[in-house]
Amino acid sequence: MKSEELYALLRRRGFLWPSAEIYGAAAGLYDYGPLGHAFKRRIEGAWASWFLGLSEDYYRIEPAEILPEAVVRASGHLENFTDPEVTCARCHSSFRAETVLEKVRPAGVDGLSPAEIGKLIEENQVRCPSCGERALELPRPFNLMFGLDWGAAGKERAYLAPETAQASYLAFHRMWDVGRHALPLGIAVIGHAYRNEIAPRQVLFRMRSFTQAELQIFFDPTHFPLPFEEVADESLPVLRASDRANGLSAPRAVTARELVGEGGLPEFYVYHLAQELRFFRDVLGVPPERIRLLEKSDAERAFYNRLQFDVEVSVESLGGFREIGALHYRGDYDLTRHGTATGKELAVTPTNRPRLVPHVLELTFGVDRALWALADLGLEMEGERTLWRLPAHLAPVPVAVFPLLAKPHGEAARALVTTLRAEGIEAQLDDSGTIGKRYARMDEVGTPVCVTVDGETVDPAHPNHGTVTVRARDSKLQERVAIPALPARLARVGRFPRPRAER
Amino acid sequence: MKSEELYALLRRRGFLWPSAEIYGAAAGLYDYGPLGHAFKRRIEGAWASWFLGLSEDYYRIEPAEILPEAVVRASGHLENFTDPEVTCARCHSSFRAETVLEKVRPAGVDGLSPAEIGKLIEENQVRCPSCGERALELPRPFNLMFGLDWGAAGKERAYLAPETAQASYLAFHRMWDVGRHALPLGIAVIGHAYRNEIAPRQVLFRMRSFTQAELQIFFDPTHFPLPFEEVADESLPVLRASDRANGLSAPRAVTARELVGEGGLPEFYVYHLAQELRFFRDVLGVPPERIRLLEKSDAERAFYNRLQFDVEVSVESLGGFREIGALHYRGDYDLTRHGTATGKELAVTPTNRPRLVPHVLELTFGVDRALWALADLGLEMEGERTLWRLPAHLAPVPVAVFPLLAKPHGEAARALVTTLRAEGIEAQLDDSGTIGKRYARMDEVGTPVCVTVDGETVDPAHPNHGTVTVRARDSKLQERVAIPALPARLARVGRFPRPRAER
Repeated sequence: MKSEELYALLRRRGFLWPSAEIYGAAAGLYDYGPLGHAFKRRIEGAWASWFLGLSEDYYRIEPAEILPEAVVRASGHLENFTDPEVTCARCHSSFRAETVLEKVRPAGVDGLSPAEIGKLIEENQVRCPSCGERALELPRPFNLMFGLDWGAAGKERAYLAPETAQASYLAFHRMWDVGRHALPLGIAVIGHAYRNEIAPRQVLFRMRSFTQAELQIFFDPTHFPLPFEEVADESLPVLRASDRANGLSAPRAVTARELVGEGGLPEFYVYHLAQELRFFRDVLGVPPERIRLLEKSDAERAFYNRLQFDVEVSVESLGGFREIGALHYRGDYDLTRHGTATGKELAVTPTNRPRLVPHVLELTFGVDRALWALADLGLEMEGERTLWRLPAHLAPVPVAVFPLLAKPHGEAARALVTTLRAEGIEAQLDDSGTIGKRYARMDEVGTPVCVTVDGETVDPAHPNHGTVTVRARDSKLQERVAIPALPARLARVGRFPRPRAER
Repeated sequence: MKSEELYALLRRRGFLWPSAEIYGAAAGLYDYGPLGHAFKRRIEGAWASWFLGLSEDYYRIEPAEILPEAVVRASGHLENFTDPEVTCARCHSSFRAETVLEKVRPAGVDGLSPAEIGKLIEENQVRCPSCGERALELPRPFNLMFGLDWGAAGKERAYLAPETAQASYLAFHRMWDVGRHALPLGIAVIGHAYRNEIAPRQVLFRMRSFTQAELQIFFDPTHFPLPFEEVADESLPVLRASDRANGLSAPRAVTARELVGEGGLPEFYVYHLAQELRFFRDVLGVPPERIRLLEKSDAERAFYNRLQFDVEVSVESLGGFREIGALHYRGDYDLTRHGTATGKELAVTPTNRPRLVPHVLELTFGVDRALWALADLGLEMEGERTLWRLPAHLAPVPVAVFPLLAKPHGEAARALVTTLRAEGIEAQLDDSGTIGKRYARMDEVGTPVCVTVDGETVDPAHPNHGTVTVRARDSKLQERVAIPALPARLARVGRFPRPRAER
């Protein structure tokens, strides 16, 4: 499916639309409608269940999404969180250097100096995408953070968080205090990040406000006990930086054990890489051949990252593999920087262990991107039928209840919805149009189970009295089920998978 | 309990703390820790279950939290969303006029002109709270919105949403398109609102970033069918504006029927006032004598509000009744303003009904304030015991599981936690300290049920093999329960109440 078709379908069904649409829309901002919000919450819940399920010592917090200037100065964002921007001397339009050089240099401009970018523009006679003139100036750094006038007099500066991670670093000392003084300690945040993208595009893939799910694991690099054997034989589709340097672009299947042995990666890193793969494959339901674990080279990754693999998914509507998540080994960079800036001692002494500044392993996940990718992957056309093959636990509407006819069966259907909701099952009523149309509507949004209340249900004389028709999305099989048996049967539909062994 | 004691307890247990604390904190911003986040989500879930449960045509959306300038111009916020601010000519500190006049005029300064405020300062010889000099200047309007430099060149203006409501008005036309073309149509948002408060204070009661839960009901004022008889005999603790003008401050108990009859209020308004009361009393568990429905006078409410009652709760730590929610009848102000500003026709034609610009009834709820108020109301000291009498469905930890001894009973306890979670019950393990200390810890955060795994549980020869001790928070009663019977017994602990009859 093409990007435009997919976007049109998602708009039509009220999954999402551009923010402030009646005002001509605000570039880079989207509103999630009822189904989009429900779907997004499911993705967030699945992520939290999986990664917080890795340890009893991983916790979720909800920090403010504004950071004082001193924080982003210490973190390096004030200085470095910039994109090279080129401006046209003729028409004064501004563009990301990456965008104007897209055809010339598809790999992007990360790591290039302003002079090198200017040279590329010059040599390739790149024109202004807006007015068509050859008048693009030398690039200058454009800080992507949104600044705020802060404080009673509006004279201080604060910034919308450019990533959720910083709040976890700031919270570490207090989490340590209220916790049980042991490492690893995990702090998870699902929240907004804000970036003043020069050129928002590709709908949910480059937004100015987006949702990140991030887990920061604070650990002792000399002592990270974990059940590696559980993942040792897992086959990972990795594309190493060294292979990429040799021109390869297809991943190779390597076991976790091999990645540690011949691959030379630390056990703790590979363990989490395997858990990432399992999350994308087993929880989100991404076909394994569409997942790639791509290692970033020294030049590509941020200088404080000692290791970085992006979790990429092949997204047809966007023309190929795209980053949805990543695993960053940030060392002790963050706590050291904030410790220095504040003069606070952020080293800790775990029970029975030597004092240290903990290292950080960051698991990051783009919720909006995942939403788009899952829609891209799951939507199928079977003749006239649009079918969304979504794992049941991710469906925005897990169970739909139809009265065959609105009047005579409506009351019993509503009562059934109430009963199911009282049992914690998020059932939704749909009583408009023919049953065929209602099935089609639910197939399109991935609802795994539809339940129909009909004449037999409500007729005390009929042998099927008190039973309903239960229809499965993928097989289209239908069967009669007694109403009292329904809650137990449907209870697991919306339940999130968890890691095999919780520690 | 005093405000400082309560705040200290909440900080100590990791419910919340000041944002960027290691940098000396950011005034008006708070981070929720693990228990605070879990508790906040419960309050949000309870709100959504209750108010979205009022109709199958009420939907939750998740809009962006940034608004382009044209939106806040049309809504009136650019011009009117201001607080009078006074600055000291000597030390240049700025204060809310309301703050410096707190003792002189406890009712606040709403509706007073700058000259009138200046006169009050002069007549009462009010001094600068910072340097103590009599040098406060005439007040000037200070816009409370946070502005952003927006767009590729950073030259456009956008604003952090000062309330979640505007996004619902902007979404109305699309929600109408994807819906079933009937009124009332409800759009709910739980999201952040941002205000550059001159003097953030009272912890969660005047923050710069806070969470609102708002339901905007779009309706036809000549035709709002609802089951009024269901609430007609409900007794409401109202304090009418006319009574307040006569110096009364205690509410009177008036039935919903009387409020419509002698009280002269519209049926649709009183119906929702009764549902607000039920939510605060029956869902949040606020004792009825601590709830007051306070009508705002013509001078106090915003000019576009035709009716406004605040839902106030008596919060001991803050010294009396405080606004937690409100019910605003905003007429057709919002859709008309946005229609005019955009040139878009925002009138609609419901099936079989005349064309109209829908009116809006706004139900608004301060999530952070509710969190504080519930902690204030529920925490009790019984000798050495701190007990939080919280409704079971709001408890951040609904079920705690204790191995009596960490080593011999730990495995069975962890297995039980896994089993309960697989059944959708959010159980949490606690294996540190004596059982008495663990009970105390759980009592303090309101956990309604604690389950202990002990030697009898794991001893195949013991008659109590396979059973656990279940202990209730309020009664402290303990009983042995067979593990297979636990999930059914605990399934309802975290379940939210819903309105009696869903329509």
